[in-house]
Amino acid sequence: MKDIAKLTDHRGVRLQRVGIKDLHVPLQIREREDGFQHVLGNVTLSVDLPHRYRGTHLSRLVETVFQWRDKPLSGHEVRIILEQVRKKLEAKRAHMTVKFKYFLTKSAPASKSQSALDYDCEFTGALEDEGFDFILGVEVPVTTLCPCSKEISDRGAHNQRGVIRARIRCVKDSWFWIEELVTNLERLASCEIYPMLKRRDEKYVTEMAYDNPKFVEDVLRDVVLYLRKDSRIVWYEAECETYESIHNHSAYAYQSEWRKDWEQQ
Amino acid sequence: MKDIAKLTDHRGVRLQRVGIKDLHVPLQIREREDGFQHVLGNVTLSVDLPHRYRGTHLSRLVETVFQWRDKPLSGHEVRIILEQVRKKLEAKRAHMTVKFKYFLTKSAPASKSQSALDYDCEFTGALEDEGFDFILGVEVPVTTLCPCSKEISDRGAHNQRGVIRARIRCVKDSWFWIEELVTNLERLASCEIYPMLKRRDEKYVTEMAYDNPKFVEDVLRDVVLYLRKDSRIVWYEAECETYESIHNHSAYAYQSEWRKDWEQQ
Amino acid sequence: MKDIAKLTDHRGVRLQRVGIKDLHVPLQIREREDGFQHVLGNVTLSVDLPHRYRGTHLSRLVETVFQWRDKPLSGHEVRIILEQVRKKLEAKRAHMTVKFKYFLTKSAPASKSQSALDYDCEFTGALEDEGFDFILGVEVPVTTLCPCSKEISDRGAHNQRGVIRARIRCVKDSWFWIEELVTNLERLASCEIYPMLKRRDEKYVTEMAYDNPKFVEDVLRDVVLYLRKDSRIVWYEAECETYESIHNHSAYAYQSEWRKDWEQQ
Amino acid sequence: MKDIAKLTDHRGVRLQRVGIKDLHVPLQIREREDGFQHVLGNVTLSVDLPHRYRGTHLSRLVETVFQWRDKPLSGHEVRIILEQVRKKLEAKRAHMTVKFKYFLTKSAPASKSQSALDYDCEFTGALEDEGFDFILGVEVPVTTLCPCSKEISDRGAHNQRGVIRARIRCVKDSWFWIEELVTNLERLASCEIYPMLKRRDEKYVTEMAYDNPKFVEDVLRDVVLYLRKDSRIVWYEAECETYESIHNHSAYAYQSEWRKDWEQQ
Repeated sequence: MKDIAKLTDHRGVRLQRVGIKDLHVPLQIREREDGFQHVLGNVTLSVDLPHRYRGTHLSRLVETVFQWRDKPLSGHEVRIILEQVRKKLEAKRAHMTVKFKYFLTKSAPASKSQSALDYDCEFTGALEDEGFDFILGVEVPVTTLCPCSKEISDRGAHNQRGVIRARIRCVKDSWFWIEELVTNLERLASCEIYPMLKRRDEKYVTEMAYDNPKFVEDVLRDVVLYLRKDSRIVWYEAECETYESIHNHSAYAYQSEWRKDWEQQ
Repeated sequence: MKDIAKLTDHRGVRLQRVGIKDLHVPLQIREREDGFQHVLGNVTLSVDLPHRYRGTHLSRLVETVFQWRDKPLSGHEVRIILEQVRKKLEAKRAHMTVKFKYFLTKSAPASKSQSALDYDCEFTGALEDEGFDFILGVEVPVTTLCPCSKEISDRGAHNQRGVIRARIRCVKDSWFWIEELVTNLERLASCEIYPMLKRRDEKYVTEMAYDNPKFVEDVLRDVVLYLRKDSRIVWYEAECETYESIHNHSAYAYQSEWRKDWEQQ
Repeated sequence: MKDIAKLTDHRGVRLQRVGIKDLHVPLQIREREDGFQHVLGNVTLSVDLPHRYRGTHLSRLVETVFQWRDKPLSGHEVRIILEQVRKKLEAKRAHMTVKFKYFLTKSAPASKSQSALDYDCEFTGALEDEGFDFILGVEVPVTTLCPCSKEISDRGAHNQRGVIRARIRCVKDSWFWIEELVTNLERLASCEIYPMLKRRDEKYVTEMAYDNPKFVEDVLRDVVLYLRKDSRIVWYEAECETYESIHNHSAYAYQSEWRKDWEQQ
Repeated sequence: MKDIAKLTDHRGVRLQRVGIKDLHVPLQIREREDGFQHVLGNVTLSVDLPHRYRGTHLSRLVETVFQWRDKPLSGHEVRIILEQVRKKLEAKRAHMTVKFKYFLTKSAPASKSQSALDYDCEFTGALEDEGFDFILGVEVPVTTLCPCSKEISDRGAHNQRGVIRARIRCVKDSWFWIEELVTNLERLASCEIYPMLKRRDEKYVTEMAYDNPKFVEDVLRDVVLYLRKDSRIVWYEAECETYESIHNHSAYAYQSEWRKDWEQQ
């Protein structure tokens, strides 16, 4: 059976990424405390394509993903997957993104009732001769309460659900757990969010947010200071977006920096 | 050229709806005050298929939609389109849904600054020998402020963006304008939403919501009372959903009734 | 601490459904062959509200969902959850929808390579004094190849990804497994879909679809005949939608019937 | 009334972007042939924030967008908007993205029947002292037919809807019209897509795609060659994604380059 993908291509164009996108697959993600968590993964996986070949064997990418279905993943395993893919497909560069909802147990602030909150997370890795590049991404739902609204109003203050998004790169041989990044970020809003709150918890979070008013600018500045301070981080991209309760659009603030730039300031 | 769709089908199954879905097309929607509004329409249009034919000529449905591209639509025109489609495709029944974002001018409550807010709307019509059935649907973004949170907290109260969804059927020869339905519904939440608010407007909406706390249950009950009271309405489906600022899920309340049922109570 | 939800309401409106929506939670779903599958669940859970009470205690609904986090679910357990909720909230009626991606192992048709395909599924249950109502819903991705295109063209035929959606109600004390419904529906398109296909499998599915051309009308008629024939089913709603490769919109066919109606024909 | 946003901030962090996101507004887009088109716009607009100020006046951003509601936009007007915003908010840098569906008239290949196809488009501009940066983005739905499937199968070949995405930057004082970019890109797939096709058109597109099989790799290489050749372009990002008819995931190929890099090769 003829292999069209292996035909010689004469256009002289090397392609940076050829692969599969939005493959849904059940995966396991390593937890900080030794175990792992079952997640629904969305996988994008690609390799570069030398100018001389017409195409890539995409089924081998799918096959590789399914071989990892029952083995817990972290950044370390993303690297191993990319090494396998580079070898199997004779590629110089391999690139992978895995997106999934990850759950952390939350204790309500007053009643201590337990439930689990969902965070959209992402592992993105790229492997080439020059090394391995890895990005950890998290989205943390939070509450923000508007300082301007509080100041100018005789009573109350508008507040809303928002999200802190952060993507980070670490220096070689160091890393962050999702648990660590999420837990530190969610403290930087007006108040944390919880799936289950009893009445005494609701009193707590209402007053906590009211006592701690923050613009998207305030949240993002505190996020920037936190990320800059951790010496493991060499690059980040961060955003705070709030689904305003008084508008039908969002407010947002965005920042992205390399360590060498913020240290020069 | 052979017409496969017109072949005889021997399975003996009449189909209720065969057609096109998610066709994007620029449309015009009649406004209450004589003019019309350009919108981005999403159209689903179908006919029934007698058991003896294998298929329907879907291109004629697309053609019909494009013929209406430059003529302002309201419920009346939906009926004419369905009559054309019934005739063109020799069908007993035709069914259409048009979804679009519709804008209404809003004046900020204190500064009177003008902007335009977007409402997701829907026209759904069905035509058969027995008559024409029409549903008007609107989604109205609003603010709600939690009465429990206000009561139990020493200061502040959580609030959030929410949406009131309503779909209504009217008695023969009567109808509602989008403008009328939207304007009446948005008064039933803790406060209306605006695209543009100056500081003195922000003070107004913050205090307005604080003085007017409502659960989803409260909003929906007021919606139910409003809809029941209007003698043009014979059926409705209504929902209030709030994107809770203290959770990562929604609270909601839902109701659907026919006039004959609520009048019997 | 005052309980605002338990205040007397004087509007005289009983509400049909009050609850939580889009709560994300890790769940387990019972498999046909004795085990269970970890899934990412999206839960909507509600109760009715008597006219005399102002509100419902939504945190009890969240609490109930988390208590079921580690116990495998099927229709039977949905009923138990609804019984618990009715009791806990002194409600007459409780209603629940759980949506999740469910995976079934697929063997490629020629190479027999194994992978797992994702199907969007739904359990919907409603419990009241009069009894328990349960709907199983599945969405099955498939390939369809256009009979008209094949007939009129000298070579080739356009084909595309499509989806068969079915929701069914069974007679008392009988039920369907997801596995059974999905496996029977996916045979009714031009060809099944697989995550991983080797070249010899690709030849198989290409020729299989070409030899088996079907309009959305054809697929839906075969679905209707299959569903009508199974004596466990008393009601269904079914749709075939195809994401046309030659258009930027879909073709679709839809049908919904009760057994008493199709048996009368 | 106190202006909290104008308070001095002591954290010492300049923010790159603070603004509004997902504001829906009716807009007009300049057409190549002198007129303009009504579209539904989705606007994100931001400015940088000096370290000494606590916040930005977001209502001025909303106000600016509404002032442009009735004036046709192209890249030129995006620059003027950003100049206004920079001035109004005393910012060094302003950034804007406008997303909209844009329609082009298509004549069916054989019958010449006319309809209009929707393309997702984007204008992104950034203005600072150093100059104005502008990106035009388009998404072009197309058909692709798999060369491997055609080669190895005795009859037929799988094909599917796909999309070519391209974002381009031009050299100073030159630009592309949406019409030009879209029209040139859609010729590079196996076949173009049309909203309305008569039977003789369907024969044409079926045979055209069959005679012109292309992998995502093939489409993207032809896109790369086309973009590199136009001397107005200094940077591009391009992707071809196909919603495979035989899988439930996509195939894709991606490339991004600066002129200086591809000219060095």
